[in-house]
Amino acid sequence: MCAKISHVSPLAPKGGFPDLPEIDGVAFASAAAGVKYTGRDDVMLAHLCPGTTLAGVFTRSATRSAPVLDCQAKLAQGTGASDQGAAILVNSGNSNAFTGRAGDATVQALTQALGTELGLSPGRVFTASTGVIGEPLPHERIVDVLGQLHATLAPNAIEAAARAIMTTDTFAKGAARQAVIDGAPVTITGFAKGSGMIAPDMATMLVYIFTDAQISQPLLQRLTSDANARTFNCITVDSDTSTSDSLMVAATGRSGVDVDAGGADGQAAFARALHDVMLELAHLVVRDGEGATKFVTVQVDGAASNEDATKVALAIANSPLVKTAIAGEDPNWGRVVMAVGKSGAQADRDTLSIWFGDILVAENGWVSPDYAEQAGASYMKNDEITVRVDLGLGQASATVWTCDLTHGYITINADYRS
Amino acid sequence: MCAKISHVSPLAPKGGFPDLPEIDGVAFASAAAGVKYTGRDDVMLAHLCPGTTLAGVFTRSATRSAPVLDCQAKLAQGTGASDQGAAILVNSGNSNAFTGRAGDATVQALTQALGTELGLSPGRVFTASTGVIGEPLPHERIVDVLGQLHATLAPNAIEAAARAIMTTDTFAKGAARQAVIDGAPVTITGFAKGSGMIAPDMATMLVYIFTDAQISQPLLQRLTSDANARTFNCITVDSDTSTSDSLMVAATGRSGVDVDAGGADGQAAFARALHDVMLELAHLVVRDGEGATKFVTVQVDGAASNEDATKVALAIANSPLVKTAIAGEDPNWGRVVMAVGKSGAQADRDTLSIWFGDILVAENGWVSPDYAEQAGASYMKNDEITVRVDLGLGQASATVWTCDLTHGYITINADYRS
Repeated sequence: MCAKISHVSPLAPKGGFPDLPEIDGVAFASAAAGVKYTGRDDVMLAHLCPGTTLAGVFTRSATRSAPVLDCQAKLAQGTGASDQGAAILVNSGNSNAFTGRAGDATVQALTQALGTELGLSPGRVFTASTGVIGEPLPHERIVDVLGQLHATLAPNAIEAAARAIMTTDTFAKGAARQAVIDGAPVTITGFAKGSGMIAPDMATMLVYIFTDAQISQPLLQRLTSDANARTFNCITVDSDTSTSDSLMVAATGRSGVDVDAGGADGQAAFARALHDVMLELAHLVVRDGEGATKFVTVQVDGAASNEDATKVALAIANSPLVKTAIAGEDPNWGRVVMAVGKSGAQADRDTLSIWFGDILVAENGWVSPDYAEQAGASYMKNDEITVRVDLGLGQASATVWTCDLTHGYITINADYRS
Repeated sequence: MCAKISHVSPLAPKGGFPDLPEIDGVAFASAAAGVKYTGRDDVMLAHLCPGTTLAGVFTRSATRSAPVLDCQAKLAQGTGASDQGAAILVNSGNSNAFTGRAGDATVQALTQALGTELGLSPGRVFTASTGVIGEPLPHERIVDVLGQLHATLAPNAIEAAARAIMTTDTFAKGAARQAVIDGAPVTITGFAKGSGMIAPDMATMLVYIFTDAQISQPLLQRLTSDANARTFNCITVDSDTSTSDSLMVAATGRSGVDVDAGGADGQAAFARALHDVMLELAHLVVRDGEGATKFVTVQVDGAASNEDATKVALAIANSPLVKTAIAGEDPNWGRVVMAVGKSGAQADRDTLSIWFGDILVAENGWVSPDYAEQAGASYMKNDEITVRVDLGLGQASATVWTCDLTHGYITINADYRS
């Protein structure tokens, strides 16, 4: 039995799912196929108009799932604007991961059936699956609801789609931004699921973003990859990487606003809006991190290289000792020193400075003479914590986001048996 | 206030501290200096006879402590057999880490004072400290007991020495082996502390090993480094690396048995005995891992390279999702697949096999057809768990040891405030 999604994260945004604008050329539907869950929708369809360009980034896991491998192969063949439409089909309850050659066949069956239903070639149908691993996906249950999904497609059904792919997420995650290119607006909207857990699954992050901008596939892919490197690749809940992580961006072009023709300013405006949608969704994933009670920003400055800055930031953000200290509201800067030291990056005791929020804690290889433990302890009671480190060696910086490590994490991942 | 060492690990060896043989040329003493603890010994001295050779390995942390830097500098200058004796002085309660230049001065003061007391040059005095970080070490309290330590040195006082350097260890850890070289026996004995925690410290591992063998410094260093790579570098509790980890081996030569002259067989016999002492101590550290309820062996075979084998083994052993599954007695092989995938090593879904103990769980990219979930669940109830992975790609192997991740870990590291 699966854990019920019955509680709300203490870090959930107030007001619930946002009122997202519709995107011309995109329609959504969801249905209850009964893959594993009962009494709720567990499949979502996004139908994209002819001319839509698609880009994506996926998990780098060496054991990635069958749907991920299929999406990557299709994107590698080029999926530029087509006179056909396109479709994205996602189910929750079963990840179709580590299901051998049968898993590959399941993806073929689903993409062919949906292609037939919508009049698309299978090469224009993309799928993702999240849920239990190593069990055959009963894809015939999904095939059975394809007609219903097709019949109920609606431009305003995005929230139901976002909810259909939730697993142990405690809230649905959506975000939107507008960019202005040569005076004309384009809209970007998207939703994400993560990082819940249903034993014996691993947390999986799925992200789908839609825009009415007109944009070439190579530019869309480049901007998506760039933004991903600074958003979803900069969050961590527990350092574990899913076999199914997928992010896709679909641009319908229906606004008639051409990003490629928008010049440097227009492209920058679109890139910023896309980045901001992705960053907001990434932060929502961290806020829903398993057992999280604190949202933590780790900022590293003064590194000798960008690679070193990221190494240090991730070493701090993934350190169980740092994360438990934050859970305990303990201004334990010694554990930050430890994490810097183990990161593998160039570091020097005597040039290292550490702040909790605006409070300078350590400098010149020792505790700051003005630091008062009481000030640190008081700061750590906040729901949002910033740990800042200046390595004092160079100009490179990195920021990552994480959450604390609590009894809630152990309860979710150890106490529930599969 | 420090957490009291009031409980015994459920994985503690039966019978307590072993009855270790004395090593000719080594004497121990311990005393209560009151560095931080009260009512217990917190300083230990090991006095080594003239002619002793010394070797060591230390943390690779970029923020390592002042005593570690001092020991490394002395060993780098060469500490081969000397007509002087040598000494090792270790305190608990304060790690003298991230204490700036004052920390360096403290080490100088301690080594000079002990050198004067024992008639040694400071270059033959080695120190280590474990405990609170970032606070000045009140070294005058230690200086005050040096005369008492000197006066009470005794060859059979090793257990008290081992206990003096414990922090939140729940039991003292000792081991011994004998090697026979050209028909003559040599003895190796040692003790370790780790991996307890006192907020706001990080867990630290200190290991001291003594032998009456006669051995050149370069050979002793090489055998020590080799054995360390297969023992202490292959254990992990929480992936966090201390700034103070230290391991030293001292060979008094008093047996008159010359390892260098022992040929390949004699050297191999000594190397094996040294390795076995180190492995036993390393396993004891894992068994005393914070909150541990299971001792876990992760064995990886069939890797394309030794580096890949180690990457996969450590990815499994450090994965919070694998470690919580083991804590929950959940035969969650999907999380093992995930950890293999994220390791960065070459892996192939369709050649990967996974066992829990002798139970084949997954093969050929999917669950094994003969696997019964009930058999896996039953196996996971054991106190000692082996997870074995065959990548099916090459001949390289690696083994690492770890423990599970439990509510006890969170309680120790989050619930106690500094």
